[in-house]
This record gives sequence, C-alpha cells and structure tokens, in this order.
Amino acid sequence: MPPDAPTLSLRPARREDVAAIVRLLADDHLGGGREQVTDPPLPAYFEAFEKVAADPRNLLSVAQDAAGAVVGTLQMTFIPGLSNQGAELALIEAVRVDSSLRGQGVGQVMIRWAMDEARRRGCANIELLAHNSRVDAQRFYERLGFVKSHAGMRRPL
Amino acid sequence: MPPDAPTLSLRPARREDVAAIVRLLADDHLGGGREQVTDPPLPAYFEAFEKVAADPRNLLSVAQDAAGAVVGTLQMTFIPGLSNQGAELALIEAVRVDSSLRGQGVGQVMIRWAMDEARRRGCANIELLAHNSRVDAQRFYERLGFVKSHAGMRRPL
Repeated sequence: MPPDAPTLSLRPARREDVAAIVRLLADDHLGGGREQVTDPPLPAYFEAFEKVAADPRNLLSVAQDAAGAVVGTLQMTFIPGLSNQGAELALIEAVRVDSSLRGQGVGQVMIRWAMDEARRRGCANIELLAHNSRVDAQRFYERLGFVKSHAGMRRPL
Repeated sequence: MPPDAPTLSLRPARREDVAAIVRLLADDHLGGGREQVTDPPLPAYFEAFEKVAADPRNLLSVAQDAAGAVVGTLQMTFIPGLSNQGAELALIEAVRVDSSLRGQGVGQVMIRWAMDEARRRGCANIELLAHNSRVDAQRFYERLGFVKSHAGMRRPL
C-alpha cells in the first residue's frame, strides 16, 4: 500500500448508500451510457439493492473516507461449484472509485479488502472481467496479481 | 441448430450425477490437473453439490442424451446488482461436453438452453470467462453472439 493511501473503511452497503452507488456507477465512460441518475434513484435500483442485500452469496460494499463519504463501491459474488475439487470462487463486479480520487490508492485498498474477504470465506480463486477499454484498470489488477488468463465474453440477451 | 444436432435434454443436476460431472470436469486439458476422479467421488464434490443445489441463484445442469447418459454439464449463476439499472446478470461457468462428442452440436444446444434460461429469469446480459488456451471454444461462443469485450482476469488466493 502506498504511504499516502487514504484512510478508508470498507463496509456492506446500506439502503441509504444507493444514491451514492448509482452516482459512482454512472461516473464512468461505460456506465454513463447505462445508468440513469435521478434524485431519488429509480425504484429499480432499490429493488436490485434489496435482492443483493437478501442474498448471503452477494456482498455489495462501499468504501468510505474518514469523513464518512462514500468514495468507492464493488460487489462480490461467492460462487459454489464442483470445479477445483469443490472450491468456491469469488467474482468481483461493478468496481468504481470516485473519479476525483483515482490514482490515490483507493482501488488498491478496496481490492485487497475483497481478496481478504474471499480468503476468509474459503474461496480458492478470485476473478473479474475488465472491459477491453479499461487498460489502466487491467494494469492495476495485474499489479495485484491478477492474470489475463481468459477472454471475458459477454452477450446481451 | 445443425440438422444433425443430437437429441438432448437439459435438466438440473441431481446428487447421482456428481460422478458423471466430475468425470466431465476432469476430461479436459485444464480440468485434468485440477480435479481428482475417484469412485465414489471425493466428499468435497458432494458437499459442493449440496451448496449449489441449496442456492436458488445457482443452477448446475446436465445434458443427457436419448439413452439418459450424461454428456455435458454447465453451471449458471444469476447475479443481482445495481449496474445496468438493476438488471440481473447471468454467469456461465464449468462448461464441459463429453470429449468423444465434441463438434456434434452438444455445446450449442447447451448454451442456447442457458441463454433461454437467463432470458426467462430476466437477465439483461450473459457472460463467461474462456481460458486463453480454449481458442476453439472462444470461436464457438462468438458464433453464438458472445463478444470478447473484456479481459477475463483471475488470481489464486
């Protein structure tokens, strides 16, 4: 961790974080075209939040700074399966850091926290899909030990 | 679907399919080094099966031929989240087709079934990670409309 890493705490998201999370999701060259930021947030976001919060295998988290402001978010999914002799797999999705704070170590604190959480739950591997256009993000994940071993393939339905 | 597509049915896996699924997982240049095939299967595989079977957001499936033999397997995870205005995402993992039947359309039937199942559950997107060495599999998924839009990044824990 860099010596100037911000004082952050990671915690499960609460319903009152939904507006901040939606803003973070939209504050992005890909998310900007996908999300709709309104005040209050669209009911669909709250409905999705309730589904995530009700599921012990999904963990939506926020990073808050020393003043309590939400400055980042990520979601983890803990996937059981027979592969790897029955080891669980952790998937990270929807990682966002406040665009005014990028490059200051927020993401590193968040991903290290996610790896610790996945280890704590006994996962053997952690994986994610990083969009081809997120070149800096891919380098960032490589520095944390992730390997571009797979093609991440997606299809709209 | 090719005219000679096999008569297959897809169904949720049952406990008595565990041995066949483990054989399929191991019958693979990557899985061969990761799995342990014993008779009966290791308890860890049954424990993993019970976790998957107990979770409504995970669907472990098998493809069976007209004679009832298990010739393929895949797992789906239905992931709730705020991204994409709260749309659910479907992840496919652990896809295997009996090596003696590859190239005969089994995989196509399986993946089309998975896409239908994801649509039925209201998922907006379906995604997967295909190992860099699985060049034929990547082409196969591209023919079914998947795009290599992301780097699939993984890290052991």
